Amino acid sequence: MLVSRVRMPDGRSESDLLIREGRIAEIAPTGTLAAPGQAIVEDGAGALALPGMVDAHCHIDKTLWGRAWVPHSAGAVLADRIANGERRRDELGLPDGGAMRALLRQMAASGTTLARTHTDVDPEIGLAGIERVAAATTELKGVIDVEQVAFPQGGLLTRPGTAELIEEALQRGMVQCVGGIDPAALERDSARHLDLVFDLAATYGAKIDVHLHERGTLGAHTMELVIDRTRSYGLQGRVVLSHAVAITEVDRLQAERIAAGLAELRISLTTATVYNTPVLPILDLERQGVNVGAGNDGVRDLWGPYGSGDMLDRTFHLAYRSGFRTDERIASAFDVAVSGGAIALGREPARIEVGAPADLFLVDAATIGEAVAARPTRRLVLKRGVVVARDGRVVADEAFADAL
Amino acid sequence: MLVSRVRMPDGRSESDLLIREGRIAEIAPTGTLAAPGQAIVEDGAGALALPGMVDAHCHIDKTLWGRAWVPHSAGAVLADRIANGERRRDELGLPDGGAMRALLRQMAASGTTLARTHTDVDPEIGLAGIERVAAATTELKGVIDVEQVAFPQGGLLTRPGTAELIEEALQRGMVQCVGGIDPAALERDSARHLDLVFDLAATYGAKIDVHLHERGTLGAHTMELVIDRTRSYGLQGRVVLSHAVAITEVDRLQAERIAAGLAELRISLTTATVYNTPVLPILDLERQGVNVGAGNDGVRDLWGPYGSGDMLDRTFHLAYRSGFRTDERIASAFDVAVSGGAIALGREPARIEVGAPADLFLVDAATIGEAVAARPTRRLVLKRGVVVARDGRVVADEAFADAL
Repeated sequence: MLVSRVRMPDGRSESDLLIREGRIAEIAPTGTLAAPGQAIVEDGAGALALPGMVDAHCHIDKTLWGRAWVPHSAGAVLADRIANGERRRDELGLPDGGAMRALLRQMAASGTTLARTHTDVDPEIGLAGIERVAAATTELKGVIDVEQVAFPQGGLLTRPGTAELIEEALQRGMVQCVGGIDPAALERDSARHLDLVFDLAATYGAKIDVHLHERGTLGAHTMELVIDRTRSYGLQGRVVLSHAVAITEVDRLQAERIAAGLAELRISLTTATVYNTPVLPILDLERQGVNVGAGNDGVRDLWGPYGSGDMLDRTFHLAYRSGFRTDERIASAFDVAVSGGAIALGREPARIEVGAPADLFLVDAATIGEAVAARPTRRLVLKRGVVVARDGRVVADEAFADAL
Repeated sequence: MLVSRVRMPDGRSESDLLIREGRIAEIAPTGTLAAPGQAIVEDGAGALALPGMVDAHCHIDKTLWGRAWVPHSAGAVLADRIANGERRRDELGLPDGGAMRALLRQMAASGTTLARTHTDVDPEIGLAGIERVAAATTELKGVIDVEQVAFPQGGLLTRPGTAELIEEALQRGMVQCVGGIDPAALERDSARHLDLVFDLAATYGAKIDVHLHERGTLGAHTMELVIDRTRSYGLQGRVVLSHAVAITEVDRLQAERIAAGLAELRISLTTATVYNTPVLPILDLERQGVNVGAGNDGVRDLWGPYGSGDMLDRTFHLAYRSGFRTDERIASAFDVAVSGGAIALGREPARIEVGAPADLFLVDAATIGEAVAARPTRRLVLKRGVVVARDGRVVADEAFADAL
């Protein structure tokens, strides 16, 4: 396939991209490529070509996307939200395959080509959530890659039976990532919670992604415990801390020591920059060698009514609340949503470069800054060189199924 | 005109609205109104009818809306932005009539029926900015009401000649509102700056709107000075403090004393909730009797590349960063964008009630919460009973010009 007349992410040269076997095979000034006669030509018409985005932290099992409005019903603290989520899950038929597929389509149509979703596991739902998410993502195979985390939303220690279920999911190969949550604030026993999570990951060769809402010195302490274990278990490059805003709330010396540990052990952070939570200082973290990815977190669910599934929206929140105004700075935030997320998930980042996977999208914008500020409908989305969405909609499922 | 089958702002009953002479004349369950034979019928098709929004703080003279992308070029502090704005103003031909009209159309098409815009006055631009804004708003007369503030962006004391220009604008009846800016941080003489602003307002019977970016105890002190003068000049209900985040940064006792002063003298605050600035605690302020309006502030200009002109977007930022999740709480934020803004400007708030001005819009949403979370394209916008926009676009200017 030839994608003609697109501008590179820096907004400058107009080029043609030749896609072959799911990768960018050649990039050359418009009109200079000799495309094979049978090549499909997609006219980029001067749009900006950007690498496919990674939603490194979402919860598609909880979504009500595309359904009639459900007014928010949870209380103000984490425990209320967990309780409300579990209480109303059955009443609302969650996880809902239709809502999940609708959200995955929306994510793909906005240029997200890879996602990590945290799926609730607890004694009530068992592994049914993981099965339903797997069914939904299988239907969207080829459109968007999704990896699941077996996520103990209600706790591992405080909800007996949950760890056994997660182990079963790992044993059966249903997931390759173990979740954790607030080892101190929710679980009341940081060391034991983290030992359990790391033991499971080590035993089954799995990755780790721990939700860390804990604030200030408590959260920073938990980060130190995670750093210790990543080193002692030899899980360098396999651990993610999600949210982790505590690093913004402790003194500079402690924050720098933690950042050094994260960098050394290639522990990534992911941020959703939701509501009024502190913003991770992505430029400082980059300078310190800490990788940061971004995600939408919950989208239209029992935890909150907001969200769009669009990683350009999420990049906007990150850039806006970071006070980034220049194209260069906004591009740094976008990079978090692309390479940062891919690195966090241990995947190859998409790039508009020869040899890179042809995961990309086209958008009518002069620069990444304009794309993030205005968030226009995506003209075209390619996943491994296949057109999966056009003008903000996933192309008919049959069409891409044939093309695979 | 009959607007049929709309739901009231609480999302409940489906009703028909009879509009007569620019006001809502009757509201009755769908199908029960005997509309005059010649009435135009607009089918609401179950959409939510919401009162027209007020952009209580914007800067349309600076906008680049609808133009080719201009990468951000200013430095990080206020003085850099002021200097950059003035330096590049001529190069870019600002204020730009076309960009202003495009933005005003966008604002109107999203359901804003009234706006207050701060127009730069300084010795270089003189009163030309005010004249150009007046020309643009005159062209949109009947679509959106706009009032101008003669705004000394670069300072009154620090830019000799500016006060005389503002006085001339007041004398000639070009504006009815005097602006001020950071009396301490920028002007270095709070008392004299405020005396000048209040003298001008008192002499010409004008209103006052002071930009207050000053933080912490400094900004709180300036608020106290404004309270003192509002009392001594007898300008109750005629003064607005824009931004005014200092009230969130001082101890509770001082914050409560200031709030009591604002409430007593009917001094409104306006908030734009931009970037990462502290969020005004609108529920506390409401409880304390302080009126708060909202505005977009700068939209796509030399000060920053963001913004859409849509007050539902701005309401989203206010609600989201306030952590509002329930329909009821989100409706409180929306009320800031409707009655809060109208009261700040000394106007009659729009309401979906018999006798209220027929400034309203229709949107496909179950509740205000959904409208703010999803921000769908506005189906229809009425200004004083005239259809001014449909499906996100202002109707042809001739059409509404005829109807006026």
